Order: sequence, then C-alpha cells, then structure tokens
Amino acid sequence: MWGIIATWRMALEGIEEAEKILIQDGKASQAIETAIRNVEDFPYYKSVGYGGLPNEAMEVELDAAYMDGDTLDIGAIGAIKDFANPISIAKRLSKEKVNNMLVGYGAEKFAYDEGFESKNMLTDRAKIHYHNRQQEILQQQIKPYDGHDTVGMVCLDNDGKMTAATSTSGLFMKKQGRIGDSPISGSGFYVDSKVGGATATGLGEDLMKGCISYEIVRLMKEGKNPQQACEIAVNQLDKELKERRGEAGDISVVAMNNKGEWGAATNISGFSFVVATDTQEPIVYLTKNINGQCIHEKASEEWLNEYMQERMKPIIKK
Amino acid sequence: MWGIIATWRMALEGIEEAEKILIQDGKASQAIETAIRNVEDFPYYKSVGYGGLPNEAMEVELDAAYMDGDTLDIGAIGAIKDFANPISIAKRLSKEKVNNMLVGYGAEKFAYDEGFESKNMLTDRAKIHYHNRQQEILQQQIKPYDGHDTVGMVCLDNDGKMTAATSTSGLFMKKQGRIGDSPISGSGFYVDSKVGGATATGLGEDLMKGCISYEIVRLMKEGKNPQQACEIAVNQLDKELKERRGEAGDISVVAMNNKGEWGAATNISGFSFVVATDTQEPIVYLTKNINGQCIHEKASEEWLNEYMQERMKPIIKK
Repeated sequence: MWGIIATWRMALEGIEEAEKILIQDGKASQAIETAIRNVEDFPYYKSVGYGGLPNEAMEVELDAAYMDGDTLDIGAIGAIKDFANPISIAKRLSKEKVNNMLVGYGAEKFAYDEGFESKNMLTDRAKIHYHNRQQEILQQQIKPYDGHDTVGMVCLDNDGKMTAATSTSGLFMKKQGRIGDSPISGSGFYVDSKVGGATATGLGEDLMKGCISYEIVRLMKEGKNPQQACEIAVNQLDKELKERRGEAGDISVVAMNNKGEWGAATNISGFSFVVATDTQEPIVYLTKNINGQCIHEKASEEWLNEYMQERMKPIIKK
Repeated sequence: MWGIIATWRMALEGIEEAEKILIQDGKASQAIETAIRNVEDFPYYKSVGYGGLPNEAMEVELDAAYMDGDTLDIGAIGAIKDFANPISIAKRLSKEKVNNMLVGYGAEKFAYDEGFESKNMLTDRAKIHYHNRQQEILQQQIKPYDGHDTVGMVCLDNDGKMTAATSTSGLFMKKQGRIGDSPISGSGFYVDSKVGGATATGLGEDLMKGCISYEIVRLMKEGKNPQQACEIAVNQLDKELKERRGEAGDISVVAMNNKGEWGAATNISGFSFVVATDTQEPIVYLTKNINGQCIHEKASEEWLNEYMQERMKPIIKK
C-alpha cells in the first residue's frame, strides 16, 4: 500500500513522477523529494523554487522542510537564496545530529559546502511580475502579500514509512528574512509513520498560530479519519482567528494516514490538491467548504487546461 | 490574580522586576518583556543575550519570540546579530500584520530601521569560553553543542491576559544560521489566554519533533492541570525519541494556566525554574524526574550562592 497527497494543482507532474517510484516499491523519502524538485524546477509556478516571486528587495528567498515519520528527523531551511533545490538541502539537513534548521547566510554556506547546485532563481518573468506589482501597489489596486501557494506533500510507501515535505518562495513582496510556516515543524508540516502526516498552505503567520499540521496528526492519532481531522482543525483555527482578530488568513491543508486514507480542507474557495494511491491514479481535486464540510470535486478538463494556459500566458510589463 | 513562571535560575532577577509590575496591576506584555530584558542584559548568563556564547564562527546569533495569548499574535526573530534586546524586537514584530518572523540580515534590517539599540553582544568572557571550548574539542574532552539554556517565560496578569516569551543564544558552537526551538511557535512557546501557556528549553532539534509547548497547552485545554500536562508531554516525547532514535535530548518545560496554577517537568537532573504569583514570592525550584513524576524542591541558600559564584568566577584562558 502506498499513497501521496499534495497541495495545489502545480504538484501534478511531480506526483506523477512520485507514482512511478512508489509503484516500484520505491521509498517515501525518494518519492517526495523527486516530486517536490519537479515543482521547484518548473519556471512557470510562481510560488515555489525557480521562477518563485521575489521579496520586497527583488530577491527570491526560499523556505523548505523535510520530515521523516519513522525517526522524526527534521531538516529545514529558511530565507535561502541562489540554490536550485531547497527541498534537497532540507532533506540533507535532516540527517545531521543537530543544526537541523538553518536560515539565510548559514543555510547558503551549508548548501555550498555540501556541493548543492547554485542557481539564480529570479526569472525574467518573475521580474516582470515584481515590476507590475509595484505599479499596482502604487496605484493602490491591490495589497502586497497576496499569493502564497506552498507546495506541501505527505507520502506513504509500501514499507509503511511516511514522509512530509514543503517548498515555497513565501509571500510575494515579503520583507527580507521573512519566514512563513513552511519550514516550521507542526505548522507547515508534521508526520509520524505510526499515525499519518499533514501539511498546510495559506497565510503562514496565521497557520503558526494554531500549529495546524501537528493538530491534524494528533486528531488522527485520537481516531479521526484524515478528512475529519482536516475539517476539525481548519474550522477550529478559522473560528478562533475570526473571534479574536476579526479575520482569518487563508488556511488549506491536506493529510494522509498510514493506511493511505486521505483528506483535505480549506477556508477559501479554489483550493486544489492532488492525490495518487495504489488504487487511484493521480487526480486533481477542487474543494470548497460548505458550512464546515469540505466537498471535493474532480477538476474538469476545461479547468485543467485553463490552469496551465493561465500560468504560461505571456505577461506584459506595465 | 497574577503569576509568572520561567525556565532556569537565571530568570530570578527578571522575575523580581516583573513581580513589581504585576502587583501594581501592570500588563503581562510589559512584565514579561521587562523580565526577559533583564536576563538578556546580564553579562554573566552565557546562554541568553549579552554575554551569550557564540556560534562556530565566534558570532553571537540570537533567537527570541513573543506571543500574545489573547490575539495569538506572534513575533519571532532568528539568528540576529548585534542587537541588545532580541525580545523587544520580537515583541515589536508581533504587532505587524504579516512578516512576523524574520531571520538573519532581514531581522537586523528591521531592528535597525525601527531604531532598536545596536550592541556588540560578544563579551571578552564569551571569547575566552569560545577559545577554551576549541581547545577542549581539539583534545576531545567534550562534544560541541553542550549547553543550551533558553530563558522562557509564561505570564498571567490581573486582567486575565497571558503572554509567553523566549530568548537564547542557542547551542554553543552551533552552525551559522542555526535556529532552535525558541522562535518556533508550538515548540519553544505557546500561549492561549483561554487556557494557559508553556515554554521549553533543551535540545531545540528534539523539542521541535514533538511541538511540546503546543501539546502542553492542549493537554491543559483537555482538563489536565499544568503539572500533569508538563509531565505527560515530557514523558511522552522522551519515550518516543528513545524508542525511535535510541536517545532523547534534554527536555525541560514550565507551564501556567489562566488560574495561575503552574507546573514544570524535565528529563534531566538539575533543571531549575522560578515562579512568582499573587500568593507566592519569587521562588527558585529544582526539579527531578523520578519514574515519570517530577518532584520540585525549593533551592537551598547554599545552592543559590554557589550558582552565582560559579557564573561569575574568573575564567582563565587555556
């Protein structure tokens, strides 16, 4: 029995790669890294890896994490510049005895010393987005900080081992050195092979307020199925934030337990996710929250075509 | 009703300052900041603020966090250099709408722009410790990475508001850019005024594996008293780590609920903590874990005298 679940449609091609590995008895560690690298490498996804949108100083600063559900090993990097595959650096860090979470210059030094591929992660397309956003902000059409689609995944392999991983360029126009939930254990990700795993995407600053990934795994440990656990955790955090702060940021989560059962929940419209298991080819779902219950619908051919056209359409400098 | 609890004896003078504020109906936000600043400023405490021990490149890189239990606002900084009071920068960050966690250069830029006091945090005494440690490592007498005493506090004021805060220089001889649990929501700290708060000290890399501060608050929410919650969480994480990894790093925690009841637990010997409430003057306790139960004993005059003599005794360069 194997399975893998990921946030957002952008994970599809990566999940297809992971499927090939998992079908052949491959490991959850290798499958999840391969899948995330695929998303990082694709230049048209503007919230992860190469082509990710820059911070306010027009630098692409990336966050990523990897967790092993058997040993609870964690590797995490924050605000790293100029390296092609943050997920592989995070995974490498998870093997260290201490110093498992490195940020900024220290993360770059580690990556350099370990021979990871250097790469200028700022694409011409991202530069145009940056320029246009500046124009829009000047004209007060939109707020900065819109858009923050982290790729997060949870994976189960035929040996019963589970892993979780995340990778993101974080909030567009974020301040230099800003860290979101993605490299934060318990908030952006958590996995325990005895139970299951979860990962989150949305406004990192709000996700941290509820340690939502840990909470979902804990609910599954208590006996909830992944769908129940995701809904309870999202609805609860959304409610607490609105009650105390008047508003809640975007919260979207996916989870899988160690039986390959899965769930997803969100407090926004338009959250997509991808699942593949030994009984199900990779499928993209769209989900919506109707009075606390999240209904998943298979994405239509039309939606899928439009998605990719939208991502790859020419953009014009304003 | 008010109360404040803190990790380690080093918090005593700060707690005495906080007591003066809380007795006079002062706020939990001000009391906890004042107490932590006191620890940061004292040059003889070598794991927090000024005089904190440096990383492997002989730089003092500091982590800190602040959380508001009413709004769940969080401010956190990681791997910041050359600023006197990390806790005040973290508290200031908690007021921002986004970008609440900043690391490295970005954290320094924010602190500079906001007018926080710049200060070379490396003392001559810390330099001697660094030199001596290098000698000892060369002679293989000790491992690097020993010593990691974070000051963490949880505070309740007469209005029923709760706060949590942490500050640390992290592992001695850590890699540049290494972040521990102290600025990580749910691991180093967590507080909810509806329930209570908790904070942790020990091996950050292992504390993150269990999101221990969030777990303690959750156990209190379930109805456990702070002492039960601390013991359950520490014993559980210690057991899981030993079972999966053969060993567990140091884990010590303190907690307080919104009735001013408190608890503490540890998996090491020699963990000290400080508590003051409206019915109890500041007291330093020593605790030990006997078969899963933690017994607290008031520190003797002799222990207290020796503690300070040991911290302030002249050190000789090897």
